[in-house]
Amino acid sequence: MTAAQTLASQAKAQPFEGVMAPVVTPFRADLSVDVERYIAHNKWLLSQNCDALAVFGTNSEANSMSVAERNDLLDRLIEAGIPGSKMMPGTGGCALPDAVAATKHAVARGCGGVLMLPPFYYKGVSDDGLFAFFSEVVQRVGSTALKLYLYHIPPVAVVGISLKLIERLIKAYPETVVGIKDSSGDAANLKSILDAFPGFGTFAGSEAGLLACLRGGGVGCITATGNIAPAQIRRVFETWRTAEADGIQEKVTAFRNTMQKYPMIPALKAVIGHFRKDASWGQVRPPLVTMNEEMKAKLVADIGAHGFTMTGL
Amino acid sequence: MTAAQTLASQAKAQPFEGVMAPVVTPFRADLSVDVERYIAHNKWLLSQNCDALAVFGTNSEANSMSVAERNDLLDRLIEAGIPGSKMMPGTGGCALPDAVAATKHAVARGCGGVLMLPPFYYKGVSDDGLFAFFSEVVQRVGSTALKLYLYHIPPVAVVGISLKLIERLIKAYPETVVGIKDSSGDAANLKSILDAFPGFGTFAGSEAGLLACLRGGGVGCITATGNIAPAQIRRVFETWRTAEADGIQEKVTAFRNTMQKYPMIPALKAVIGHFRKDASWGQVRPPLVTMNEEMKAKLVADIGAHGFTMTGL
Repeated sequence: MTAAQTLASQAKAQPFEGVMAPVVTPFRADLSVDVERYIAHNKWLLSQNCDALAVFGTNSEANSMSVAERNDLLDRLIEAGIPGSKMMPGTGGCALPDAVAATKHAVARGCGGVLMLPPFYYKGVSDDGLFAFFSEVVQRVGSTALKLYLYHIPPVAVVGISLKLIERLIKAYPETVVGIKDSSGDAANLKSILDAFPGFGTFAGSEAGLLACLRGGGVGCITATGNIAPAQIRRVFETWRTAEADGIQEKVTAFRNTMQKYPMIPALKAVIGHFRKDASWGQVRPPLVTMNEEMKAKLVADIGAHGFTMTGL
Repeated sequence: MTAAQTLASQAKAQPFEGVMAPVVTPFRADLSVDVERYIAHNKWLLSQNCDALAVFGTNSEANSMSVAERNDLLDRLIEAGIPGSKMMPGTGGCALPDAVAATKHAVARGCGGVLMLPPFYYKGVSDDGLFAFFSEVVQRVGSTALKLYLYHIPPVAVVGISLKLIERLIKAYPETVVGIKDSSGDAANLKSILDAFPGFGTFAGSEAGLLACLRGGGVGCITATGNIAPAQIRRVFETWRTAEADGIQEKVTAFRNTMQKYPMIPALKAVIGHFRKDASWGQVRPPLVTMNEEMKAKLVADIGAHGFTMTGL
């Protein structure tokens, strides 16, 4: 992998590092996007030193929204004063025209990067087919401003991104394909990526892998719980070169493990609703299901045992 | 399941029966939809006694097309003189607004029915969530003209449709939820559906299960190879009440098994291109990969051994 390593090492300074949130999307009771609450949540995240906003990710229910809804929402964030440079929208999709349209829009709005799922309807597809898909997107967008992060999340998308595919994409588009989010939940896979591609912008898909990621040469994490605990998680990023970091990571991982006992997206929304004293935050779009009161009470008690609270709301 | 059985039995005469093709979609070298070849292929299918057209299915690469592309293509078919009553377009999707938009369009164009995938991004979702999704689509479309067929294809979508979910949907929308395509490839599952819901419009997802489906009370099959061999497969439908049918089914299954040794969608397009003497038919959209010449030659020889040919082109 020498060629790929060289190319990756030559990559420019990464546009993103630190702790990013895949921003959850509030919906009204009629399932329309609640733009006002959405903007407020994005602003709160930045106020809590969340480094940047991975809007339209898995936790954002992005694939439960149309491309038009997502593009409009991005516009609304920018109108609200959030700079594009702080955003890494998810722009992948099953259909090439959709992925191209969303990616073009993100580049036109000055987004610092995009996070791109592979097309995920057909299973067992080849690296040749996935390479062709990403390649078509890059070429059709046709902009040196495009900074593309690959999104590897086999537990959900089922279709994954192999080391060989990463290597081919870096070789073909060294100035464009600049990083990856590894949400495999497999520490060995994360290590393989870090070892194979030094200089590549590798994010752990959960804060549970943050310290290992940073010590292995990665740049941070993009994590569900970044929606509620960005400042706490960021302490790992702030201290990772010190011995203190291990203890902080341990605490952060314990909190994550508690959250993971619940369906993550409804749980995040329930927690935000609890601390904002705003139950309407709990709404999800189908096929997800809003958390019921009983489970919500259990969740609030469970995170209370960690001394957790959301401040600055 | 008595209530559901009663409701299903009361269902009106099915809008579709027999052999349907999930119509493959030709693309140009630049990956745009080749409308002219598409219309010609749809017309050929009807000329071969293909009972109706399941446009925008898995074999159509429908999820590799945007909703706008699919809606436009439906308009072009109707402009070309193909009646809506002969079409059962796929209108499912991960995002509720997309599924609603496509379904509304199909109903507005007079389609005899729609074939609806469950939302397939999130895995392990509950029947409550899936019920809510289908329910929202039915209510937002809000038309008694909507005839909805559920699309159960767990090998691809991973998210499936359980017997309990079918029952809930039939109970809630007895005039709307009128059938299912079972592409599980699991004969026992097909039998369970047939036994549980007499009068429901149950299609086998492959001609390999056609005779069993018809003898069990089902209405036909919607099958990939219907794109190239509709007349041959339809012989099973024409004879299923007779002893002759078993021998015909055996031959049809043998041909299917040969086709299944190849990646199905590129193979179908290669076969059509071969008999039309039109290599450009082979093009697929990524993440699928167009069949190479070597494999195509092997495929043509393999189906030749069955004495297979496409006539009336």
